[in-house]
Amino acid sequence: MNVKAVINTLGKMTLAEGILLILPLLVSLVYGEYSGAVSFAATIVISAFIGGLLILLTRRHNNVIYAKEGFAIVAGVWLLISLIGALPFTISSEIPNYINAFFETVSGFTTTGASIIKNVDEMSKGLLFWRSFTHFIGGMGFLVFVMAIIPNVTDRSIHILKAEVPGPTVGKLVPKIKDTAKILYLIYIVITVLEIILLIAGGMPVFDSVVHSFGTAGTGGFGIKADSIASYSPYCQWVIGVFMLLFGINFNIYYLVLMKKFRDVIKSSELWCYLSVIFASTAVITFNNIELYKRLSVSVRQSFFQVSSIITTTGYATADFDKWTGLSKPILLILMFIGACAGSTGGGLKVSRVILLFKTVSREIKRLLHPRTVSTIHFEGKKVDENTIGGVSHYFAIYIICFVAVFLFISFEPFGIETNFSAAAACFNNIGPGFGAVGPTMNYSAYTEFSKIVLSFAMLLGRLEIFPIIIAFSPTIWKND
Amino acid sequence: MNVKAVINTLGKMTLAEGILLILPLLVSLVYGEYSGAVSFAATIVISAFIGGLLILLTRRHNNVIYAKEGFAIVAGVWLLISLIGALPFTISSEIPNYINAFFETVSGFTTTGASIIKNVDEMSKGLLFWRSFTHFIGGMGFLVFVMAIIPNVTDRSIHILKAEVPGPTVGKLVPKIKDTAKILYLIYIVITVLEIILLIAGGMPVFDSVVHSFGTAGTGGFGIKADSIASYSPYCQWVIGVFMLLFGINFNIYYLVLMKKFRDVIKSSELWCYLSVIFASTAVITFNNIELYKRLSVSVRQSFFQVSSIITTTGYATADFDKWTGLSKPILLILMFIGACAGSTGGGLKVSRVILLFKTVSREIKRLLHPRTVSTIHFEGKKVDENTIGGVSHYFAIYIICFVAVFLFISFEPFGIETNFSAAAACFNNIGPGFGAVGPTMNYSAYTEFSKIVLSFAMLLGRLEIFPIIIAFSPTIWKND
Repeated sequence: MNVKAVINTLGKMTLAEGILLILPLLVSLVYGEYSGAVSFAATIVISAFIGGLLILLTRRHNNVIYAKEGFAIVAGVWLLISLIGALPFTISSEIPNYINAFFETVSGFTTTGASIIKNVDEMSKGLLFWRSFTHFIGGMGFLVFVMAIIPNVTDRSIHILKAEVPGPTVGKLVPKIKDTAKILYLIYIVITVLEIILLIAGGMPVFDSVVHSFGTAGTGGFGIKADSIASYSPYCQWVIGVFMLLFGINFNIYYLVLMKKFRDVIKSSELWCYLSVIFASTAVITFNNIELYKRLSVSVRQSFFQVSSIITTTGYATADFDKWTGLSKPILLILMFIGACAGSTGGGLKVSRVILLFKTVSREIKRLLHPRTVSTIHFEGKKVDENTIGGVSHYFAIYIICFVAVFLFISFEPFGIETNFSAAAACFNNIGPGFGAVGPTMNYSAYTEFSKIVLSFAMLLGRLEIFPIIIAFSPTIWKND
Repeated sequence: MNVKAVINTLGKMTLAEGILLILPLLVSLVYGEYSGAVSFAATIVISAFIGGLLILLTRRHNNVIYAKEGFAIVAGVWLLISLIGALPFTISSEIPNYINAFFETVSGFTTTGASIIKNVDEMSKGLLFWRSFTHFIGGMGFLVFVMAIIPNVTDRSIHILKAEVPGPTVGKLVPKIKDTAKILYLIYIVITVLEIILLIAGGMPVFDSVVHSFGTAGTGGFGIKADSIASYSPYCQWVIGVFMLLFGINFNIYYLVLMKKFRDVIKSSELWCYLSVIFASTAVITFNNIELYKRLSVSVRQSFFQVSSIITTTGYATADFDKWTGLSKPILLILMFIGACAGSTGGGLKVSRVILLFKTVSREIKRLLHPRTVSTIHFEGKKVDENTIGGVSHYFAIYIICFVAVFLFISFEPFGIETNFSAAAACFNNIGPGFGAVGPTMNYSAYTEFSKIVLSFAMLLGRLEIFPIIIAFSPTIWKND
């Protein structure tokens, strides 16, 4: 393990976070919130100090990194930026307990959106901005973001990109890794700006529009009102609902659109599957809720919004779906695990993995009947190699094992199986709200500090797709070689 | 597909069921229950007619069968004997609704023990005997049982044995398949008789002892009292608790004991893992329940009994574990999925599969760090070939997919997620009682007929380990070739 290169990168990323913190500092100053401004300024100083120190200590290092360094860097960076990112909440006393602040920040960066804040309306604008800005940074990836900007990005950074961007099939869009990162971020920013404009056009205040667009872009879900999006106009709800769906799509698709390769877009089975699942789930839940909402248009809007929010693992709500009956909640629970498309900002298993799992299983059944036939699996028009297929099955196994472990670790909490199970699912899949005591109108403040730490790690496990965290915490890899 | 050979075997098995029905007929006569006796006699006539007809229609057939015929035979036989085995309940009007009777019979043969009977105390002895006898037959396998007895068993029947006996690594104990079936059944009967003797010695009435030993042997769980085993003496509860554990052990272990290969027994990692999980779960739950039961000895007994009952997927209860708090219920929920050892009469994923999954996952993590190292997985002192490893991962995927499907299909029932989730888990893993409205003091009578049919298929899927049922229901295999 090239420990020096890992620590050096940690230092650089800490400095980068310090620079990003200038933005919320400015927001605090604009709104005349001096306590908030001071807390951001103090955190910037701390980041500069820690970052500078880490870089100084590892001045002499070589840049050669492999997969294991990639995993260690990603895990380390995400933990460190969360630890530092939590400071403004505690220094300003808006979240006095540091563990709560850490939970909230991890929830932000991992784009989970699970909150421990009881009265979100009383928070200062600067901190609300920072909270939602973490969604925006975490969505496409903190390291990918920095890679898009800083010079000297070698092609070895593919190991970092692969470890940070969700999905089983991350590749470079263009030969240079730095250009890939730039293209991804440009697409990301353009769609976000588009949403901000459409929301402002619909009469949503500018601050609210920006913050909610950050939350949508990262498929995060932090809101600024106790009832999430419920009190905004149906128009705004439709805009956010549709943009959640858009941010759940593989960003390669947008790149293909830019390259005018529409035929490839239409042929994407992941896209079709994703849209079909959304359509079918919305249809069933609309039908199920028709009595509750009386009018079809309302039932369609409420059902679509919640389906889009859950499958993309955003977590915004316009209705208390915990009160829904019949098939609605079980469907939402299943969508929590399916998640969005690979290469999007969403969490969960990812649609492409689910498709590959089904294809593998159906091949397995065929093999039992005709043991001597050799058959290959095709996906998105290409032959899938056996390593990827095995990888998906193994990932699924480790995914379920981790989920069960998280569920077990928080199970001593007195909220019952439905709440604890959905809390584990909602954090592990980076959604935010679950059912029962962590339903969309509730929050995670009632959990003990131990459970909050467990759930914070669950969010990191989910966002970084398990391996970086497990690998970074296995002592054997930290040997210097 | 050799359809004629399949139908011919179905016919033979129907005749075999008719012969087995003589036993409950005798019980009815002994207790002077003429309505019951008539219903058994009528069913025997029906079995003889159907069985004879099927055999007559396929007089000329060849005996060559392959894996797919094995699957089709097992799926077909289990469905047919359940359809016929349900008749006595309906003919005698003790379960007037045929779908209820079918559910109860599937639950019996698959050794699930989920019941729709509200007042089990009011049922006649003959039918109670038949209900528990289905557990005994289903436990080791109906076809294996018949194979042990009838002549002309060719070695091609290994395909039937493999499809019917649970676990990923079924093999022949001895060169001849018929002898393997005989040895398995001899061990099975000897342990069952031992339990009957120990229960009678403890003061349990003879009828109760026999019936409960059948339920234990098959890891079924049908009781004859509303409170299951709770009203029997602590001694009897200990006996049943320990025997449930014994029937959850791989029968190969008993064969090794008979062969005096004690060193191989001690080296079995599945056995150690199984016992460790039971010990750890019992310890945690005992500690958790110490306030509830006041005395340590009572808490140990209650915790051990329930843990043993759930991990072996039996489903007997001496306490209303639905009322337990903290970690107890989540642990039981996880045990439901782990299940007993491969090659035992228990259900669930099986301990050996769980071990292999963990080994595969840990190798996967090592591979990410050292992509060029080749490492093999060892289990029970042997190298596991890659096909078996892939098979376990794929089985796990299809297992979870089937479970989610069952859960979704019964989710429109108004009992909430905890009840429906645990009902799906309890039927799919062949346990019986779940939580909430299907807790140990409740039953499945409140479910709609649609859900009862879904859950019946879930039980068959679970007992036959999914593939036979799915394959038998895929139209392509029924082509005559």
